[in-house]
Amino acid sequence: MAGEDRVQGAGQSGQLDFARPLTTVDVVIFAILDDRLQVLLVQRPAGEGEPFPLSLALPGGFVDVAKDRDLAACAARKLKDKTGVTSPYLEQLGSWGSATRDPRGWSATHAYFALIPADAREITSDARWCPISGGKVREKLAFDHGDILTSAIQRLRNKVEYTSLPAYLMPAEFTLPDLQRVYEVVLDRPLEKSAFRTRILSADIIEPVAKMRRGPNRPAQLYRLRKGREPVYFVRTFNPPE
Amino acid sequence: MAGEDRVQGAGQSGQLDFARPLTTVDVVIFAILDDRLQVLLVQRPAGEGEPFPLSLALPGGFVDVAKDRDLAACAARKLKDKTGVTSPYLEQLGSWGSATRDPRGWSATHAYFALIPADAREITSDARWCPISGGKVREKLAFDHGDILTSAIQRLRNKVEYTSLPAYLMPAEFTLPDLQRVYEVVLDRPLEKSAFRTRILSADIIEPVAKMRRGPNRPAQLYRLRKGREPVYFVRTFNPPE
Repeated sequence: MAGEDRVQGAGQSGQLDFARPLTTVDVVIFAILDDRLQVLLVQRPAGEGEPFPLSLALPGGFVDVAKDRDLAACAARKLKDKTGVTSPYLEQLGSWGSATRDPRGWSATHAYFALIPADAREITSDARWCPISGGKVREKLAFDHGDILTSAIQRLRNKVEYTSLPAYLMPAEFTLPDLQRVYEVVLDRPLEKSAFRTRILSADIIEPVAKMRRGPNRPAQLYRLRKGREPVYFVRTFNPPE
Repeated sequence: MAGEDRVQGAGQSGQLDFARPLTTVDVVIFAILDDRLQVLLVQRPAGEGEPFPLSLALPGGFVDVAKDRDLAACAARKLKDKTGVTSPYLEQLGSWGSATRDPRGWSATHAYFALIPADAREITSDARWCPISGGKVREKLAFDHGDILTSAIQRLRNKVEYTSLPAYLMPAEFTLPDLQRVYEVVLDRPLEKSAFRTRILSADIIEPVAKMRRGPNRPAQLYRLRKGREPVYFVRTFNPPE
């Protein structure tokens, strides 16, 4: 078709006043708390005309064209507003848009997923952590947020198989067994200790700090994530399934 | 922050009339033509107020809230309008949105990438195939379409390393050497013949048809893509680099 629809309806700026979809950003925020993978959810308001009143939903909201430089900045703003955390791992997950996902009209959301350290617990009062079990939360979520959450869990698990991503779930200082435990929680299966140790140390993503953790067992070396390291891709997966 | 901005500004439907970003879908359409990876581009119009007049751009356009059921349907419509092809491989690539990417205002595009067979050449007259060389096209593209194209090429190459995706670039019937050549064109490096053959046949994504191709060399078995097969993930990559 020769008539491209960006061409028609565009032209002079006065011709851009056709119906526009609602544009939102939603953030799937994961942390390991109480030895479980958890996701941060907020309760929908109950006001008149509000869709899914009182249901739980992913934190997010409309793009503010005056405030948000770009989609990632909008996602970072939502994350900060909801958790107080500013520099976690934030990755674009995908977009979900249709005529029916929001009763208020054609709507498209840009979904991100974020990993925050276990010790960043100062979340806002209207948000709550919900444990993930069997690849989902117990509650039914507003909009299509259940589908978005399922995709995010799948993405996280796939990446854990072949990247250093879980390091972003750790507190500032941690031991190798702490880190292994986080991999195991996300993957929901045990990993072999010496293979794990070799893999992580050779990936060069963490560095020892000049102290040991002392406790009931023998002292354990503490590590921290190397600054400025992007997530590292491993050449092979951990214990490839079958 | 307790005040979630989806809450403020939303509420009754009459309260949704804040500034909304422009919402577009763009499609990176790849084919192998003349033994090269090529991408389908269209020329921007030159009318008054049109951004990037006469520049080349990815085919795409505004979401039509009356016509498009969802983002994927919008992408399929763009693909059909531009190529006449209806059932190719279409995958979400990512979204690009900012205050500055379109001079007409805050704009977010949902980018898809599509693979079409080499024999689907009946494209529309305002579109043209441009060869990719060194990971890009020679021309400077409108908007941030150069960045989107770079991401799409990267995604395609990564996937070719570990999936059966290139089968979607093939005509209805093809030989194994034809298929190997397409992998080599996308990856821009030669593959070892017997390893390729073993990999492809064990992935069970193609099936022989009851005829041979005859020509100057000895007759070659023809294959077709198995119907309804999703792209298959290989356990290992081809010739892992280094």
